[in-house]
Amino acid sequence: MNERITKLKKIMEQEKIDHVLITDYYNLKYFINLELDPGERMIVLLVSKNKENILFINELFSIPSSKNYKNIYYNDTDDCISLLSSHLSGKSIYIDGKWTASFLLKLMNRFSANYKDASHLITKLRAIKDSKEIELMLKASLNNDEVMKKIFPYIKLGISEKEIHNHLLLEFKKLTPEPVPFDPIVAFGKNASNPHHISDNTILQKGDVCLIDMGCRHQGYCSDMTRTFLQKNEKMEEIYEIVKNANRLAIEAIKPGKRFSEIDKVARDYISSFGYGQYFTHRLGHGIGLEIHEGYDVSSTSEILIEEGMCFSIEPGIYLPDVGGVRIEDLVVVSKKGVIILNSFPKEKQFIFKGLSYR
Amino acid sequence: MNERITKLKKIMEQEKIDHVLITDYYNLKYFINLELDPGERMIVLLVSKNKENILFINELFSIPSSKNYKNIYYNDTDDCISLLSSHLSGKSIYIDGKWTASFLLKLMNRFSANYKDASHLITKLRAIKDSKEIELMLKASLNNDEVMKKIFPYIKLGISEKEIHNHLLLEFKKLTPEPVPFDPIVAFGKNASNPHHISDNTILQKGDVCLIDMGCRHQGYCSDMTRTFLQKNEKMEEIYEIVKNANRLAIEAIKPGKRFSEIDKVARDYISSFGYGQYFTHRLGHGIGLEIHEGYDVSSTSEILIEEGMCFSIEPGIYLPDVGGVRIEDLVVVSKKGVIILNSFPKEKQFIFKGLSYR
Repeated sequence: MNERITKLKKIMEQEKIDHVLITDYYNLKYFINLELDPGERMIVLLVSKNKENILFINELFSIPSSKNYKNIYYNDTDDCISLLSSHLSGKSIYIDGKWTASFLLKLMNRFSANYKDASHLITKLRAIKDSKEIELMLKASLNNDEVMKKIFPYIKLGISEKEIHNHLLLEFKKLTPEPVPFDPIVAFGKNASNPHHISDNTILQKGDVCLIDMGCRHQGYCSDMTRTFLQKNEKMEEIYEIVKNANRLAIEAIKPGKRFSEIDKVARDYISSFGYGQYFTHRLGHGIGLEIHEGYDVSSTSEILIEEGMCFSIEPGIYLPDVGGVRIEDLVVVSKKGVIILNSFPKEKQFIFKGLSYR
Repeated sequence: MNERITKLKKIMEQEKIDHVLITDYYNLKYFINLELDPGERMIVLLVSKNKENILFINELFSIPSSKNYKNIYYNDTDDCISLLSSHLSGKSIYIDGKWTASFLLKLMNRFSANYKDASHLITKLRAIKDSKEIELMLKASLNNDEVMKKIFPYIKLGISEKEIHNHLLLEFKKLTPEPVPFDPIVAFGKNASNPHHISDNTILQKGDVCLIDMGCRHQGYCSDMTRTFLQKNEKMEEIYEIVKNANRLAIEAIKPGKRFSEIDKVARDYISSFGYGQYFTHRLGHGIGLEIHEGYDVSSTSEILIEEGMCFSIEPGIYLPDVGGVRIEDLVVVSKKGVIILNSFPKEKQFIFKGLSYR
């Protein structure tokens, strides 16, 4: 059996869990490397203690057989929940947190048991990346660096956010057929004071910063990086240095055994010491992997301990309403040899090219 | 209050339902015209009998206030399920079928009640389109016609499925910024015998059919149309006429008060009378609206009665394994004045242009 399911079964043994139902796209990709979106149709990988694993799948999506699980096909006129419940025996059932209420309520009606959310359990497994996963994460970040490098020359007075946004998507498309994991953020000037700004027709003007938050996928694994480029502007240059140092100090503080809240505190305290604490309005970072947000937050309330193999973002920011904002985001992985930064596009203060304007 | 929520409240009154929790993207769009994907964060429109509607939303997504509901904001450190449950009183609670197990299991732990799936209820409301919705569906289909017209000249010997697929996406992009509701299907020759073929590098060769199944969106509402273009090929010309007549006869049979299964039967019996019944491998059609599949199937097992305002596809097909296939799909809406076909690209047998090849 594959290593990931073996680990899950070991936990089930320890915690006396009879069944785990895995249904989410990314969880199925993680456990059995299946990439399938069955739309509104049911798909369930039933992992049972001391029993063969079974994949329940609509016959419309016939897939090759596997030594890791048995396929049981149903069709559109079958009662797939009945079929599933006929393979349940134990009373401790853990459900994929992403399963939909329609299926869950039907199953609860059919088979009385103690239903619990499997999310914590699966999150914990997925949070620790193996060497193969780290390799894929690294490649995704290399691609991200590559595209940032290609985009930089386009950043000139007169260009619009949307134009850079389009160039970004085009460059990603040239590198990889995989869709980007999130809509890139391109924010000029005071738009950069909104951490979730949606790129629009705003034109880059004198003095504006240009904040770019972008990522791509490699074999499903995500990259995610933010850089903020400057023009002569005293305030923005000041907060740039503070954010850059907060990013560096937080990364230097990462160590197995520490709590995520401690790492958040390093960046937050540093930023607060300059009086900007109230303008750092979000968590310091988030876990990442097959999904752009997975695993554990790097936040003031996260008491989770850092472990080897964990992969997450460090992205302090300062957002001054109606003025502008700076965010600097890197992805890191905690390895045996220390903390590795996956992306490598420079973080030194960079000024936007002052040549001819774009038009 | 808006008409759609008023209708829901009337049903709640009749069926003694205390609360309905609306959480799905499309349901929120339908009931309160909200277009927001909060990712993993909770969003719930709580509709309660005889009480004000409340939208529970993370403060990251501040939205304008509305006279149809009150906003209650929570933040990332709040326990949003506690907050929600503190506004529940009655014991009959209907849950959006798309809500995720994580939230539902937590709520069930917090507040003991009789939880049921709200899907049937919401599906029934959404299945009946009002005049504004029909107008938007019509425009989406006009755009679809427009793109089919632009694509037709590209269909020449030597072109690949992927090339046509790319042209399609490009033409849609020129017409509308809204993403297509499904990946268009372009299938040549024997690829067309797979109803769900994924466009690849197959080249159009002499004798091949070219099947195109495509759709776009207009203000969220979907279009969906399939046409199959021919070359001289006796078998394919024969089944083309059968499928075309099955499509026409089924559309002519649509009438308020009839069951969907009766409409499916008209097309299925006609195709079977020529000995091709076993090669018509799917339901005759599906409901459509804000989602590409919503409402009711036009299938042999659907006992739902047709009503005015319903909108669905009629898409008979014959798929001959390793030979080829033909499908002809239209969208129809049942109006007071009769059945209206939303798309209007011709269905008469059309041969692929026999001029120079593409390369």
